[in-house]
Amino acid sequence: MNEGEKMLKVSIIGASGYTGGELIRLLLTHNQVEIVDITSRQYDGEAVYKVHQNIRDSNLFFTGKTPSEIDADLVFTATPHGASMKIVPELIERGIKVIDLSGDYRFNDTSIYEKWYGMKNDSDLKATYGLPEIYRKEIKKSNLIANPGCFPTGAILSSYPLIKEELVDRIIIDAKTGVSGAGIKPSDSTHYPNIADNVNPYKISTHRHMAEIQQELNGFDDVKVSFTPHLVPVIRGIQTTSHSILKEENIDSSELKKIYEKTYENEPFVKLLNKDETPHLSSIRGSNYIHIGGYDIDETGRIIMLSAIDNLVKGASGQAIQNMNIINNFNEDDGLKAIGLNP
Amino acid sequence: MNEGEKMLKVSIIGASGYTGGELIRLLLTHNQVEIVDITSRQYDGEAVYKVHQNIRDSNLFFTGKTPSEIDADLVFTATPHGASMKIVPELIERGIKVIDLSGDYRFNDTSIYEKWYGMKNDSDLKATYGLPEIYRKEIKKSNLIANPGCFPTGAILSSYPLIKEELVDRIIIDAKTGVSGAGIKPSDSTHYPNIADNVNPYKISTHRHMAEIQQELNGFDDVKVSFTPHLVPVIRGIQTTSHSILKEENIDSSELKKIYEKTYENEPFVKLLNKDETPHLSSIRGSNYIHIGGYDIDETGRIIMLSAIDNLVKGASGQAIQNMNIINNFNEDDGLKAIGLNP
Amino acid sequence: MNEGEKMLKVSIIGASGYTGGELIRLLLTHNQVEIVDITSRQYDGEAVYKVHQNIRDSNLFFTGKTPSEIDADLVFTATPHGASMKIVPELIERGIKVIDLSGDYRFNDTSIYEKWYGMKNDSDLKATYGLPEIYRKEIKKSNLIANPGCFPTGAILSSYPLIKEELVDRIIIDAKTGVSGAGIKPSDSTHYPNIADNVNPYKISTHRHMAEIQQELNGFDDVKVSFTPHLVPVIRGIQTTSHSILKEENIDSSELKKIYEKTYENEPFVKLLNKDETPHLSSIRGSNYIHIGGYDIDETGRIIMLSAIDNLVKGASGQAIQNMNIINNFNEDDGLKAIGLNP
Amino acid sequence: MNEGEKMLKVSIIGASGYTGGELIRLLLTHNQVEIVDITSRQYDGEAVYKVHQNIRDSNLFFTGKTPSEIDADLVFTATPHGASMKIVPELIERGIKVIDLSGDYRFNDTSIYEKWYGMKNDSDLKATYGLPEIYRKEIKKSNLIANPGCFPTGAILSSYPLIKEELVDRIIIDAKTGVSGAGIKPSDSTHYPNIADNVNPYKISTHRHMAEIQQELNGFDDVKVSFTPHLVPVIRGIQTTSHSILKEENIDSSELKKIYEKTYENEPFVKLLNKDETPHLSSIRGSNYIHIGGYDIDETGRIIMLSAIDNLVKGASGQAIQNMNIINNFNEDDGLKAIGLNP
Repeated sequence: MNEGEKMLKVSIIGASGYTGGELIRLLLTHNQVEIVDITSRQYDGEAVYKVHQNIRDSNLFFTGKTPSEIDADLVFTATPHGASMKIVPELIERGIKVIDLSGDYRFNDTSIYEKWYGMKNDSDLKATYGLPEIYRKEIKKSNLIANPGCFPTGAILSSYPLIKEELVDRIIIDAKTGVSGAGIKPSDSTHYPNIADNVNPYKISTHRHMAEIQQELNGFDDVKVSFTPHLVPVIRGIQTTSHSILKEENIDSSELKKIYEKTYENEPFVKLLNKDETPHLSSIRGSNYIHIGGYDIDETGRIIMLSAIDNLVKGASGQAIQNMNIINNFNEDDGLKAIGLNP
Repeated sequence: MNEGEKMLKVSIIGASGYTGGELIRLLLTHNQVEIVDITSRQYDGEAVYKVHQNIRDSNLFFTGKTPSEIDADLVFTATPHGASMKIVPELIERGIKVIDLSGDYRFNDTSIYEKWYGMKNDSDLKATYGLPEIYRKEIKKSNLIANPGCFPTGAILSSYPLIKEELVDRIIIDAKTGVSGAGIKPSDSTHYPNIADNVNPYKISTHRHMAEIQQELNGFDDVKVSFTPHLVPVIRGIQTTSHSILKEENIDSSELKKIYEKTYENEPFVKLLNKDETPHLSSIRGSNYIHIGGYDIDETGRIIMLSAIDNLVKGASGQAIQNMNIINNFNEDDGLKAIGLNP
Repeated sequence: MNEGEKMLKVSIIGASGYTGGELIRLLLTHNQVEIVDITSRQYDGEAVYKVHQNIRDSNLFFTGKTPSEIDADLVFTATPHGASMKIVPELIERGIKVIDLSGDYRFNDTSIYEKWYGMKNDSDLKATYGLPEIYRKEIKKSNLIANPGCFPTGAILSSYPLIKEELVDRIIIDAKTGVSGAGIKPSDSTHYPNIADNVNPYKISTHRHMAEIQQELNGFDDVKVSFTPHLVPVIRGIQTTSHSILKEENIDSSELKKIYEKTYENEPFVKLLNKDETPHLSSIRGSNYIHIGGYDIDETGRIIMLSAIDNLVKGASGQAIQNMNIINNFNEDDGLKAIGLNP
Repeated sequence: MNEGEKMLKVSIIGASGYTGGELIRLLLTHNQVEIVDITSRQYDGEAVYKVHQNIRDSNLFFTGKTPSEIDADLVFTATPHGASMKIVPELIERGIKVIDLSGDYRFNDTSIYEKWYGMKNDSDLKATYGLPEIYRKEIKKSNLIANPGCFPTGAILSSYPLIKEELVDRIIIDAKTGVSGAGIKPSDSTHYPNIADNVNPYKISTHRHMAEIQQELNGFDDVKVSFTPHLVPVIRGIQTTSHSILKEENIDSSELKKIYEKTYENEPFVKLLNKDETPHLSSIRGSNYIHIGGYDIDETGRIIMLSAIDNLVKGASGQAIQNMNIINNFNEDDGLKAIGLNP
C-alpha cells in the first residue's frame, strides 16, 4: 500500500475454530488490513498459538470481548449457526461491515433456513450471498455478506454455467469432503480410526447444504437438485462430481467447455482445466483457487463436471477475504496469492 | 475335514500380484485344499515371502512352470487381461477347472470385450459369470468361472434388486476405490504424494468395468447405466454410491428395504444394514462380506443405495474362493470365515 | 475339537472398546470356546454390531451384568486401569481364571504402579506377566494373567535376547504407534486433522509403559532403559526401533542374529526377518505375529533392532487369547491363525 | 520493491522435480526476482502446469536449454547428485551465482562424498554449506552454496546448541520423513499400499545424510553420531527425535532451553516451543519454519530434542531461497512469508 493509506481494521468473532485460524493465517499476509481483536470466550487471554500452533510470528491474543466491545471497520463472524444472528444486527447497526461465515444469512426465505437448521430465524437483515463469481456487483455495495457454505461453493461454481444455459433438468451432486469440514472439535466422525482407510457417506439425502445449492441453482433454472456427501480420509478439500442429465442431446463436450470459458473468463480464482486433466485437491490445497474440469458427456446423456476446492479457503475463509477485498476495492487477490501446496 | 477325504489340489498362475497374494493368504486357512504350485516367471525359485511379506509360515516357493506343466484339480488364473485367454483353453482341455480373475471371459459378446479392452478375443469357451448371489446354480455346474471385476461386484449387488424389480430407468454409479485395485506395480497413479490427502476421479465416462456392469444389469431390465470411479486414499475397499431414478414414485423406503431382504435372505456374505447405518470399509476390510445400505428416496425420485466391499476379497480373491467352494460342494465360507478388521 | 469335548465358557468384561471388539472378533473363529457374556454398562441390551460394526454374524448382545453375575470358566477383563483391580479379586475367589488387559497387575512392586498410574494399588493378588515367549511355563499354571502393554510387547521381545546375554548397558526405545492404541473414544489426540500427515511425539520421557519395560528388562540385566513414543498416521500397529549401546564391541551382526534365532526357535508367533529385510506393519496387520529384524551394529557401537506388531492383537487381545490357549492346553494358535493383511 | 530497482534474474536447472516445483511456487510470490528459465529435458516446451498442476497463473514453460545457454544472475541447480558437479563449474566461471540443491558440494572432504555417494568427485570448487543459522556470514559472501540435505537440516539445527556447548558425547538421531523426500518418480518405496498405514525403517545405519550430519556436528565437538531414518505416511515433513547422552549430569532442562534461546534469538525461521509443547508437522507444513522443542532430560542422562520441518521448504527449496535472499541482501523472508498450513 502507498504511504498515508489507512489500514482497514478487522476483527474476528469466534477465532478459535478452523475458519478463525485460517482467517488469521491469511490476513497476516494481507497488505492493507490490521487485525484488531480476535475473540474466544474459552481462550480469553491466551496467545493465538496455544490453539493455532502454526501462528508463531504474531502478537495476537484471544480476547473475551463481547461483540459490543469490538471495534473494527469490518468483522468476520466465524460463529456457529444460530450464534451469528444474535451478534450481527448490533454490528451492522453500529456501521460495521460484516462477513458472516455461518448459514444464518444465506437463505432468501427464512422458512427454508428454519426447516433445515431446526431453529427460529426472524432476522430481517438483507444479506448478499457472497459468491463473487456470480454476485460481485452486489457484494461491492453490500454491508452484510453471507459467506457461502463449503459444499455449495464447489457445487454451484462447477454447475452454474450448465444451469444458467438451461441445459439440464436434473443434477446429482456426489461430493467428497475432507475432515476439517467437521471443525476443530473431536467426535466419533472425526476419530482417526473411523476415518483413515475409509469412506463414509452421511446424511445421504438430508444435508442442509442441499437447500443452499437448490436455492442458488433454482434461481437460474428449474432443475431437480440432489446431493450426497461423503467423508474421505483427507484433511482439507472438497472434490465434487456432478452428474447432470441433458434436456436435449444437442451439445457436445467442446461447446460445453466454451460455455465454461466464457462464464469464467475474467475470474482470478477459477481455473478451467483441459479436457485431459482432472482436478486434484493437491493442486489447490491451502489456496483460494477452484479447479474445474470434466465437460464430459456419456452416451446416456449424462454430463460429468468435476471441481476441487480447499474447504477452509475458497470454501470459507479465503472466500470471506475475497469478499472483503471486493467491498473495500482492494486487489481481489490480496492476502490470497498463495499457490496450492503440491504435493 | 474328515479323515480319508482327499484334499483339493489347487494352483495359482500369476501369484506374485495382489490377487495372487490374497488367494494364498486365504487358501492357507482353508481346510480342504492344498496349494500345489504358485507361478511367477519373475520370482521363479523365490520364497513366497520375498513378495508377500506377510506369508511366513508356509513353505511355498514361486515356480516358473508353464501352464502345461501345472498339475492341479483347479487353477486360479490371476493373470492380466489378454494373458488368461492364452492359458485357459489348454487347462480346460486337460480337465482342470479354472477360475479366471481377469476380464477375458466376462463378456457374453466378445465384440464388447474387444471394444473396451482393445484386443482381439476369439475364444469360444463358455464361462459362467461368477457372482454367486445371482448365478450360484450355474456356477455349481461350471468348469470355467469368469470371476467378476471389483467395481461390478459392489455395483451389481447393490443395485440388482432394484433392476430386477424394474423400478428405475437410469442408474448412475459413483464409486470410490482404494489404491490396491491398481495392482502391486508402482505408477504415477499409485505414488503416495499423488494419492494421500486427495481424491482422483479418473476415466470418468470410459472405465471398462462400466461395460461389465451394463451387461449384467441390462440382463434384467433396460436401464441406462453410467459409471464414474474415483481413487481415494484407501488401501483396500470400494465404496459404491448409486443414484437411480425411479420410473414411477410408487414405492417407499421400507418397501425398498424389504425387496433387498427378500433377494438376499439366504446369502452368507451379504449383510443388509439398517436404515440408520451406512456401510463402512472398516467393517468389511479383509473379509468376503458386502455391506449394503441406504434404501433412501429423496424428493426428486432418486434412490440412493450404498455398498462396501474389500476389492481384493469379495471383489477378487475371496469371491474366487467362494466360487471354488460352490463348485466343490465345500462349505461356502470355508477359508472365508474372517470377520472384517475394524478399526 | 472332538465330539464330547466341552467348550470353554469365556466372558468379556468391558467389551465395548477396541480390545473388547478384537477379543470377540478373534474368539468367534476359535474352535474350543463359547462366548457367554460380553458386558458394557453403556450398551446394555444392544446388539454387538451397534458398536463393533464388523461383527454381524453373531447373536451377541451386550449385557449390563455386574462381575458377580458373570458365569464363565475364564474372564477377560478389558477394563481401564483402576477398574480391573476392583473386579478381579472376586472373580479369582469364585474360581474363575482371569486374563486382565489393564496395567493393574503388571507390576511386581505396586509402589511403581502407584507412582506411574497415580492411584493406590493395595492388591495382594499375584499375577503372571503374560508374555508367553518368556513366561510360558508360569502362564500354564497361573489363574491370573497380567496381559502385557502394547509398547512393552514390541520393545521387550525385540530386545530381550540382547539384555539376557548382557551385551548392552543402555537401550533407547523409539516407538511409533497407531492411533487405535488411544482407544475408541475421540479426543484431540485422535482427531483426524491432528493425526493425518503428521508425527506427534508425546510423553517423551514419562510414558508409563517405560516402567513396565524397565521392570522386565532389568529382571535380566542392569541396563539403562529410555523410551519415547510417537503417534503416527496409522490405525493399527507399533513399529519399535531400539538403539542399544554395546558394553564391548566383541560381537558382529551375524552372531547377533544367531542369538535371536536361538532364543525364539520354537516360538510360533515370532518371525525373525533376514538381514536385508525390515519389519512392516502391513505384514502383521490383524495377526498375532511379531516381526523382528535389524541385527545391525554401526561404527559407534550402537545396535539397531526393529520390530512390528499389531497393537490390538499381539499387543493386546491376541496375546490374551494366546495366554488363554496356553492355560487351557489348546493349540497355541487356535483363534489366531489369521495371516497379516497385506497390503 | 521500489520503482527503478532491477529484478534479480533467476533460473532453475532441473525444474520438473519436487524441489523445482517448490522453487517456482515460492519464487512466484517473491517481490524481487524474475524467473527466466526453468529447464527440463523431458518436458521441453511444455507448460509448467503439465507437471506442477498447482501452478496455473504463470506463463512459464519448460525449456530444454543446456546450462551454457542459461542466462541469469543466479541459478538454482535442482539436479540429481552427480549431475550438479557437471554443470556448476561452468556457471560459476560465467559469473553466475549458484545454489546447488544436490549433495555434490556439501562435503569438505570429497573422499567422504565418494564413499557415501559412490561416485568420483574431483571438483575443486569451494562451496559454502548453506545453513544460515550457522553460516550466515559466509553465505553472504559466497558465490556457490551447497544447500543442506533435508535430514541434516532438521537434525543439525535441533542439536547444534548441545554440541557447540560440548554437553554430550553421543547423539542418536531417529528421524521420520514424509514420502515427498523420495522425489516425484514412483517406486516400490513410494507405492501407496506400501506406505499408508505403515512405518518403514530404511538404511538404518547407512543413510548418506549421516555423513553430512557427522561432518557438521563434528566441526563443533567430537561426538558419536548415529542416524536411523523411517518413512512414515506423510506427504511433507521431517520429524526428528534426537537422543543425546550427557557427558556430565550438570545441567537441567531450563538451562538447556536457555542455551537454545540464546543460540537462536535472532533467527527468523527458528521457533522454539515451550516445554509443554511438541513440534507438529502441521504447524510448519508448506512454510520455511523449523519448530524445535523437547529440552527434556530423563533419569538415565538422556536429552530428548525434537524438531519439525517441511522437507521441501526449510529442508530444500525454501532454504535455498533464504540463501539467495542473504546473498542478495533481500529481506530474509521475502518469498518465504507463508505460515504453516494447519490443519
